[in-house]
Amino acid sequence: MHGDDGGRPYDTDLMAAVTELGTALRELVDASVTTAVPATELRAAAAQARELTARLAAEKRPPGRLSPLDDIADFRQVYNMVSGVGSALAPPLDVRVVDGGVVAETAFGLAYEGPPGYLHGGMSGLVMDQVLGAATIRAGLWGMTARLELDYRGPVPLHTPVVLAARVTGAEGRKSVVTGTIALAAEPDRPLVEARGVFVVPRAATVADYFATVTDASGRPTMPGRPTDATKPGGAR
Amino acid sequence: MHGDDGGRPYDTDLMAAVTELGTALRELVDASVTTAVPATELRAAAAQARELTARLAAEKRPPGRLSPLDDIADFRQVYNMVSGVGSALAPPLDVRVVDGGVVAETAFGLAYEGPPGYLHGGMSGLVMDQVLGAATIRAGLWGMTARLELDYRGPVPLHTPVVLAARVTGAEGRKSVVTGTIALAAEPDRPLVEARGVFVVPRAATVADYFATVTDASGRPTMPGRPTDATKPGGAR
Repeated sequence: MHGDDGGRPYDTDLMAAVTELGTALRELVDASVTTAVPATELRAAAAQARELTARLAAEKRPPGRLSPLDDIADFRQVYNMVSGVGSALAPPLDVRVVDGGVVAETAFGLAYEGPPGYLHGGMSGLVMDQVLGAATIRAGLWGMTARLELDYRGPVPLHTPVVLAARVTGAEGRKSVVTGTIALAAEPDRPLVEARGVFVVPRAATVADYFATVTDASGRPTMPGRPTDATKPGGAR
Repeated sequence: MHGDDGGRPYDTDLMAAVTELGTALRELVDASVTTAVPATELRAAAAQARELTARLAAEKRPPGRLSPLDDIADFRQVYNMVSGVGSALAPPLDVRVVDGGVVAETAFGLAYEGPPGYLHGGMSGLVMDQVLGAATIRAGLWGMTARLELDYRGPVPLHTPVVLAARVTGAEGRKSVVTGTIALAAEPDRPLVEARGVFVVPRAATVADYFATVTDASGRPTMPGRPTDATKPGGAR
């Protein structure tokens, strides 16, 4: 079985297993920050976690080699810390294309707490960087973050449905400007966080330099890029 | 045994156990994004992780009640997603006071990857929000993030020692302005990321409203605040 929801086909059984482990680890992280078990139990849990680590570390990807589930030329990254189904750090955000931009819904758990009961202000920046970047990619553009501005209008409560949205407001040459917001799902028109990002595609020589040692799972060189970039391995799609 | 490195004394045995579990989970998260074991092994690991979750979930803190290790009036949060020793999401950053500001050193692992081989651009924002905020707190100020600006001069490589620094450049009334950088430890004077933050102390009534339901481990109301704030439970320190 091979999946193909954009990018290169992948092993759907492996994707399901990576997703299952990502979900289990996310629940474990949440349990670890809400637990009130005594120190002896925490130590026993730590010992079990180390066993689990040894089990997973039995076989490792070589440095610079992407997961067989990833397609960096299509921006698919299963371990992305915001959107990756396999990342214990990610909510994970499922960013969808809508008319004129992208949106994602989530509710942030206690692991992302800053001020008591509210989302860490920096986490708002982390997720908005990802959502703004996704808006450029879905618009057929791409770029690395050159500037990110965030205005905080009010704290984002935890355990509460929120909606993140972004759209490209300008694009010229290698540069894209994107704006977005975080708001309560119940009050989508009252932004709690406003974000503006400038994304710039590095020059071809710089891209080649940055990603010189990156290969896909089969060992072939690969790098991110706009769909129309002649320098992109595999060519235009 | 009770620790006292600022803030209220705490149970050092519990702190050591929380730190041990945090470290073990961080290693587990790293193993989960670098592993190349087959799907059957990933599923077996997920089942083990769920057992571990059940073990930790046997006893939970009530919502709004801080960990007995935390002192929010002193900004000590063991599960903080950037600096918390108990957080599997945190590097964790150890932010130190230096002449004129704060610094922290770290090397980011693969769990924080954005473009292949480099730090997620949003993660730079997350950590700098924390470091800029720490600079205000260490200067005897405090505030919630009102604005955050980031300029990206070059990608931050993974697995490479970096230094994060910040200092307060202006403070007037309830507002503080802070600037900071991320640079390679080997080239501290060539910033890869430049950050500027504006932090504002909410009015007393707003603070009381935001944190109305927050209590310390003993059930007493508590909230963040400047050391000189009359509204701060426990008073000036």
